[in-house]
Amino acid sequence: MKLSKRINKMELSPIRKFNVIAKNRADAGVKIYHLNIGQPDIKTPKCFMESVKNFDNPVVAYTESSGITNLQDAIIAYFKNYNIDFERKNLMMTNGGSEALSMIFTAILNPEDKVMIPEPFYSNYNGFITSADGVIKPITTTPEDGYHYAEKGLLEKSFVKGVKAICCISPGNPTGTVLSLDEMKIICEFAKKHDLWIVADEVYREFVFDGRNVTSFGMLKDYADRIIIVDSVSKRFSACGARVGYIASHNNDLMDSILKIAQGRLCISTLEQIGATALYRMNSKYFDTVRAEYESRRNIAYEELKKIPGLVCQKSGGAFYMTMKLPVKNAEDFLMFLLTEFSDKGETVMFSPAEGFYATSGLGASEIRIAYVLDKEDMGRAVELIRLGLIAYKEKKGD
Amino acid sequence: MKLSKRINKMELSPIRKFNVIAKNRADAGVKIYHLNIGQPDIKTPKCFMESVKNFDNPVVAYTESSGITNLQDAIIAYFKNYNIDFERKNLMMTNGGSEALSMIFTAILNPEDKVMIPEPFYSNYNGFITSADGVIKPITTTPEDGYHYAEKGLLEKSFVKGVKAICCISPGNPTGTVLSLDEMKIICEFAKKHDLWIVADEVYREFVFDGRNVTSFGMLKDYADRIIIVDSVSKRFSACGARVGYIASHNNDLMDSILKIAQGRLCISTLEQIGATALYRMNSKYFDTVRAEYESRRNIAYEELKKIPGLVCQKSGGAFYMTMKLPVKNAEDFLMFLLTEFSDKGETVMFSPAEGFYATSGLGASEIRIAYVLDKEDMGRAVELIRLGLIAYKEKKGD
Repeated sequence: MKLSKRINKMELSPIRKFNVIAKNRADAGVKIYHLNIGQPDIKTPKCFMESVKNFDNPVVAYTESSGITNLQDAIIAYFKNYNIDFERKNLMMTNGGSEALSMIFTAILNPEDKVMIPEPFYSNYNGFITSADGVIKPITTTPEDGYHYAEKGLLEKSFVKGVKAICCISPGNPTGTVLSLDEMKIICEFAKKHDLWIVADEVYREFVFDGRNVTSFGMLKDYADRIIIVDSVSKRFSACGARVGYIASHNNDLMDSILKIAQGRLCISTLEQIGATALYRMNSKYFDTVRAEYESRRNIAYEELKKIPGLVCQKSGGAFYMTMKLPVKNAEDFLMFLLTEFSDKGETVMFSPAEGFYATSGLGASEIRIAYVLDKEDMGRAVELIRLGLIAYKEKKGD
Repeated sequence: MKLSKRINKMELSPIRKFNVIAKNRADAGVKIYHLNIGQPDIKTPKCFMESVKNFDNPVVAYTESSGITNLQDAIIAYFKNYNIDFERKNLMMTNGGSEALSMIFTAILNPEDKVMIPEPFYSNYNGFITSADGVIKPITTTPEDGYHYAEKGLLEKSFVKGVKAICCISPGNPTGTVLSLDEMKIICEFAKKHDLWIVADEVYREFVFDGRNVTSFGMLKDYADRIIIVDSVSKRFSACGARVGYIASHNNDLMDSILKIAQGRLCISTLEQIGATALYRMNSKYFDTVRAEYESRRNIAYEELKKIPGLVCQKSGGAFYMTMKLPVKNAEDFLMFLLTEFSDKGETVMFSPAEGFYATSGLGASEIRIAYVLDKEDMGRAVELIRLGLIAYKEKKGD
């Protein structure tokens, strides 16, 4: 039985093979610090389950395709805190940010249309864009530059005929790079010049450090017609399993079109929308606590990372990731060493090799992403294990 | 800003305009019996919310992309009751049957590939297939034949070059037509001859009446490699808002490919999977109660329908739908009359015009679908209102 060409182009997550190996090692009694996952350990606010438990409708029924109005209204109020005005018609609830991205690319891409995206990028974009028969045109960034890309010359150099959209994940996954409002304006002007959609993936919006302001493409009202914001409760409220995301855009044609796709899948989960409503109704001070926690973890991680000779890493400004270049030729090979041979006091560490975050073949082999989703003590130890592992790896390799 | 060609081909649900009109009429004090919706009024079994309320993990975290193993195991046990053997690797949890269908067509269709589907069909198939750049090739059925299609001659006549798959919804939406196991074999042989996938949408599996056996393409093991079953808790357990569906197939290549798409959207909602596990663990006697309820509603509806002169309607064998031909030229026009002009004792009725369930232009204008999702008393009255409405409509039209 034959499958489609597009599905054959898609790939299984490359981390899977390492997961199996890590599980075997853990079963053998070695403690593994997981810096490879995007699942925060921060507790989901209690109001989530409390509101779910209060659900007393005898039938767990479909909701409106675009979501329950209470949730939409809570999100509208949330955006008003940032002086961004949305109405219900501007919002479409989705099964996490993932479905939001799938719907967007389905709605804006014709076969072979190109999408500009800074690499390294969140690798699931491959699937979202390929499923819609689009093609990724990377904007190549470097660890030496802290993976920055909001520079007119770089954008123009990366542009080719057939580009329909530019994607910006800010704060960035995997890089942790944050766009300032001025940088967002540079991207908007570039998009305007070439008549591109801007897909603004802002699921880590509040996680910005060192006194940075929260920024959003939604603040740039002059470009509202081409801006499509992707958002989610997953990271913001540490509720990844809720699968509640949304698309927000002032482009009415787009939102009407998205509704066509959304009607086809009827609605998203009812209970989780109720829980998400409570999350969005929380006082915004919640973000201060979480931000402070991630920032202190980043600081600890960065202080430890600085002890690694030959490492190329700029302190990331947001999200809960840092991407860096290790002094090794092949980070996957190093990871395999950590997971199969190395241990220190019965412990080792796992990270994400970054090669899969690049569309350009041959790039990223020496780079890795770490997620600071461990508490402070574990965070320092985990990075220490990378450093100790590197020493052992180089000894073995005879470098 | 330009949208994709595929999205421009897709249409908003045609029932939307009638929903607005119905709401206005209801606001004006007229009671409207809704035979137009697929949302059952049967209560969701209490075990669903009870198990959700017991969730006490402090983090609402991602689950595995293919679903939680408890739910998979409960579904495996459920299928064993029908002598169908699935393993975990054969099951992929999805956001309702809807996402299952989207994933399947993404995985099996190349642009312009054709999909055979008996018309009238559940109109959201348009979106699922169009999103994957496929084209519907209808197998035209008629109310006079009770919308049956499992006939070799008809299948061969409908076949054209470029067909990659045949879809069977059994029990059928919108027709309520049920495939016997022998009829399923006819379809399997046809699919084998032309090397087609069989997409078997069986979300109403247990809702079969008049002593019919529950049937599933999963029972036909000789054709397992080409069979893809779509399933859902929505109708089976009256839990539409849970959005828990799944794909079940013995074709490992397909399931590996589906996993690529599923990984991209990470997972489905955690809480709802926990609730769904409890539903699948229920004693199968639950189905007897629900089946008896739907069957008695169908009987009442059918007895009332028989009183309508000129109606063409065979008693549907399953699901909770019947589709029929009314003695009117244009059922949409008649519906508009019911919703804007007609009332009897302050009451009127709404159904689904069936034209949107046909891919062939010009077919179905006189046909409607009713869903027997109202309790027995309301069901009889609702159909009576169609009959009384027809009399008033014909008087007005001067027929």
